[in-house]
Amino acid sequence: MALDPKRTVAELKELRDLTADSNGAQRVAWTDTWLKARDWFAGKLTGLPVEHHYDPAGNNWVTLPGQSEKALLIGGHLDSVPNGGWLDGALGVLAGLAILRRIAEEFHGRPPVTVRLVDWADEEGARFGRSLLGSSAFAGTSSIAADRIRTDREGTRMEDALRRCGVEIDRFPEATREQHNAAAYIELHIEQGPVLEHMSLPLATVLGTKGVERHAITFHGQEAHSGSTPMNARRDALAAAAKLALEIRSIAGKYPDAVCTMGSVKTFPGIVTAVVGRCEATLDQRDLDPAVLAAMFREAREASERFAREERCTVEWSRIWNIEPIAFHPALLDLCDQAIREVAHSSHRMPSGPLHDAAEVSRAGIPTVMMFVQSLGGISHNKIEDTREEHLELAVTAFDRLATKAIAYLR
Amino acid sequence: MALDPKRTVAELKELRDLTADSNGAQRVAWTDTWLKARDWFAGKLTGLPVEHHYDPAGNNWVTLPGQSEKALLIGGHLDSVPNGGWLDGALGVLAGLAILRRIAEEFHGRPPVTVRLVDWADEEGARFGRSLLGSSAFAGTSSIAADRIRTDREGTRMEDALRRCGVEIDRFPEATREQHNAAAYIELHIEQGPVLEHMSLPLATVLGTKGVERHAITFHGQEAHSGSTPMNARRDALAAAAKLALEIRSIAGKYPDAVCTMGSVKTFPGIVTAVVGRCEATLDQRDLDPAVLAAMFREAREASERFAREERCTVEWSRIWNIEPIAFHPALLDLCDQAIREVAHSSHRMPSGPLHDAAEVSRAGIPTVMMFVQSLGGISHNKIEDTREEHLELAVTAFDRLATKAIAYLR
Repeated sequence: MALDPKRTVAELKELRDLTADSNGAQRVAWTDTWLKARDWFAGKLTGLPVEHHYDPAGNNWVTLPGQSEKALLIGGHLDSVPNGGWLDGALGVLAGLAILRRIAEEFHGRPPVTVRLVDWADEEGARFGRSLLGSSAFAGTSSIAADRIRTDREGTRMEDALRRCGVEIDRFPEATREQHNAAAYIELHIEQGPVLEHMSLPLATVLGTKGVERHAITFHGQEAHSGSTPMNARRDALAAAAKLALEIRSIAGKYPDAVCTMGSVKTFPGIVTAVVGRCEATLDQRDLDPAVLAAMFREAREASERFAREERCTVEWSRIWNIEPIAFHPALLDLCDQAIREVAHSSHRMPSGPLHDAAEVSRAGIPTVMMFVQSLGGISHNKIEDTREEHLELAVTAFDRLATKAIAYLR
Repeated sequence: MALDPKRTVAELKELRDLTADSNGAQRVAWTDTWLKARDWFAGKLTGLPVEHHYDPAGNNWVTLPGQSEKALLIGGHLDSVPNGGWLDGALGVLAGLAILRRIAEEFHGRPPVTVRLVDWADEEGARFGRSLLGSSAFAGTSSIAADRIRTDREGTRMEDALRRCGVEIDRFPEATREQHNAAAYIELHIEQGPVLEHMSLPLATVLGTKGVERHAITFHGQEAHSGSTPMNARRDALAAAAKLALEIRSIAGKYPDAVCTMGSVKTFPGIVTAVVGRCEATLDQRDLDPAVLAAMFREAREASERFAREERCTVEWSRIWNIEPIAFHPALLDLCDQAIREVAHSSHRMPSGPLHDAAEVSRAGIPTVMMFVQSLGGISHNKIEDTREEHLELAVTAFDRLATKAIAYLR
C-alpha cells in the first residue's frame, strides 16, 4: 500500500461526519463524542501489524515494532475544542496513520526502527482549562494536585471525568514509561494563523513553540460623575489601560515574530455616566526567545506603572500562567525543510504561537520537530477552520518524507 | 421667625435618620420610603399660611399666596438614588422651606409676590431610568408613551408604580397648568463635583446645564488567536477603541469646561487568548455651548472613523440619548452672584454637568437660575456624599438673599 494522501482527506471527512454537528467538531476530551472518535480510530488499525494500548494518562499508542527498539514517534490529537474545526489535531493523527500504513507495507511489517503513532489525550484542555494534559503526563511535567480538582461548567471534577474514561489521575506519572527508546518526535498540524496564506506557501518548518507570559492587570482610579468631574480632576482607570493596550503593540513591534495581546478589558462601574474607577485587563505575550519574552514582560510592566502614574492611578499585576519557549531540534528542522522542499516550491521557518503537544515532548528531551500546513484565513477553533485539500495532500506527502528522513537519521 | 439655617441642617439630619440605612439614603421615588419622606415634609408645613397639593405628575406644590399672583418658584426633590447621599435634592427642598417660613413671617403671610415651593417627583429616575420625570411633565416635555412601559428590576411597570402612589401617567399633561403665573425659578443644589472645593469657594452661580450627547460605539474587527496571528495581520477592535478613549480627552481639552467620558468598554470574545473581534464602548459628552457640543460630537465621530480605518475595523454609532444645553437667565445669574457675594468672599460662575429639574423649568420659558454649594471630594450618589455644615448654613443664607432679590426683581 503506497502513501495515499487522498484517503487521509477522506478519513478526516469521515471523522467530521461522525463527530461534528452544525456548530463544528465536538470531540471534547473525556466526552462520549471523543470516545466515539477514538473507537472509530481504533477500527482503522484492523489488519495493520501494530500493537495498540492506552497509557495511564489516556494517550493512545499504536506501535509498529522495528528492527531497532529505537522509536520514531508521530503524534497528534483527536480531541477538539467545542464547536471546533475538522483538522486541528486530527490531521496529525490521520497523517500518522497514513505513514504507518505506508511503512508497514514498504518494510513488510518490519521497518529499520520502531514507529509509534500517539493520539495525545486532551491537548485542548477545553473542558477543564488544562491543555497538553496527556503529553505533559508523558513528559513528567504534569501537575496532578492542581489538576484533579479542576471542574467543568457543570461542576464535574476532572478526576471523576477521567475515571469515567478509565484513567486514574494518580497513575499519570507512569505515562513517562512511554519515553523509553523514544528517539525523535514529529507532528503535522494546521498553522492556525495567516502567515503561510499571506506568503502563498503551503508548508512550513516550525522552529519551536513560543513561550507565554499571561497576566491580569488591574488599574485603580476613582469612580466619578461624568458630568460634574472636570477632565483635569479625573483619575481615569480606562485611560491608563487604553495607553497600555496601544503600548503593547509598540513593545511587540520591536521584536520580529513577537506578539502581545490585550484580549479582555472590563470597566467598573462600567456605566455611561461614570468615569471608570477600576479597569481590569488581560495581557498575553509570546516569543520564541526567552530573553525577548522577559524583556517584553518587563517593558509592559514598566509602561503600565508609568501610565498609572500619569493618570494618578495605581496598577496591580497578577500572573495567570506562563511557560518558557521551546526550541525544536536543529537536525530535525533541517530534515523538515528538505522534506518540504521536495514536494513544494519552497520552505519557510516560523515559530508556533499556539502551544502543541510537541512542546511537552521536546521538554522531555526527545528531539522534536513540527510541520505546519496553511490555514485558510488563519481561522481555527471554529467550524469555519479549513485548509485547501491539495494542501492537505501535499502536507501528508511532505510529512511522510520527513518520517523517512527521520528514520534514516535514527538508523 | 427669622431665617434659621441651623434648623435646615437639623431637618436634613432628621430626614436622613428617617430614610437612610447603613448604605445611605433610600428615598427612591415611588417607594414607601419616598412616601414616608413626603409625609414627614408635609408635617413640616403645619402652622404655615400655605396651600399644599400634589399635581397630576406627583409634584408637591406648597403655595404662599402673595399680593401679586406672579409667582417665584423655589424647587428641589426629596427623592434620592438607592444608597444615596443626605443632601442631593433634599437641601433644595428644605432650604426652600426655611425661606417660606422667613417670608411668611416677614410679610405677615402676604409677600409682594406669590412664593411657591415645589418638591419635584422622581428627579433621579433611579428606579425606571427616566430622570426629571415630574419637572418634564410640568414643562410639557414628558414622553408618556415611552415611559409608561418602563419597568424596574423586578419587572414592575412604571405606570403601575405611579398609580400605586395616586398618579395617573395619562394625566401628566395637566401638570403644565402649574406654569400659570410662574415668573422665576430658583434652585439650590450641591455641586456633585470637585470644582468649588479645588477653588476653596463655598458657593457658585450656575450658568446652566450642559447639553449631553450620549452614544454607544461599536468597533468591529476580527477575532483571532493571540498566539498565531502576527501583529501586522490583526484587526484589533480594542486598539481602535483605546485610541478613541484617549482622543476624547484631547477633544474635550480644546474647550473650557467641556467633558467627554468613556464609561464602559466591553470586549468580545473577551478572553485572554483572543485578539478582540468586537469592542463596545459608550461615550458621554457635555458642554453648555451647543456649538461646542456639536463640534465635540463631530470630532469624536470623525476620530472613531479614522481609528477604525487605521486598524482595518469598522465602527457603528448609535445614539443612546441627548439633550440640548440649557442656559439660565442673565438677570437671575447677576442676582445670584450678588447674593453669594453678600455672604461669601467671592462668587464663581460655572456650568452644571449633571442635569437638574431647573433645566426642564428653563425649557418651559421660565427665567431660571441655580446656586451650587461645595461638595466634599466631589462625591455624590453615594452615602459618603457630604458638605461642611458651615457651607450648608452659608448656602441657605445666600439662597434666601437670592429669593429676596428675585422677589424684588419680579415686583
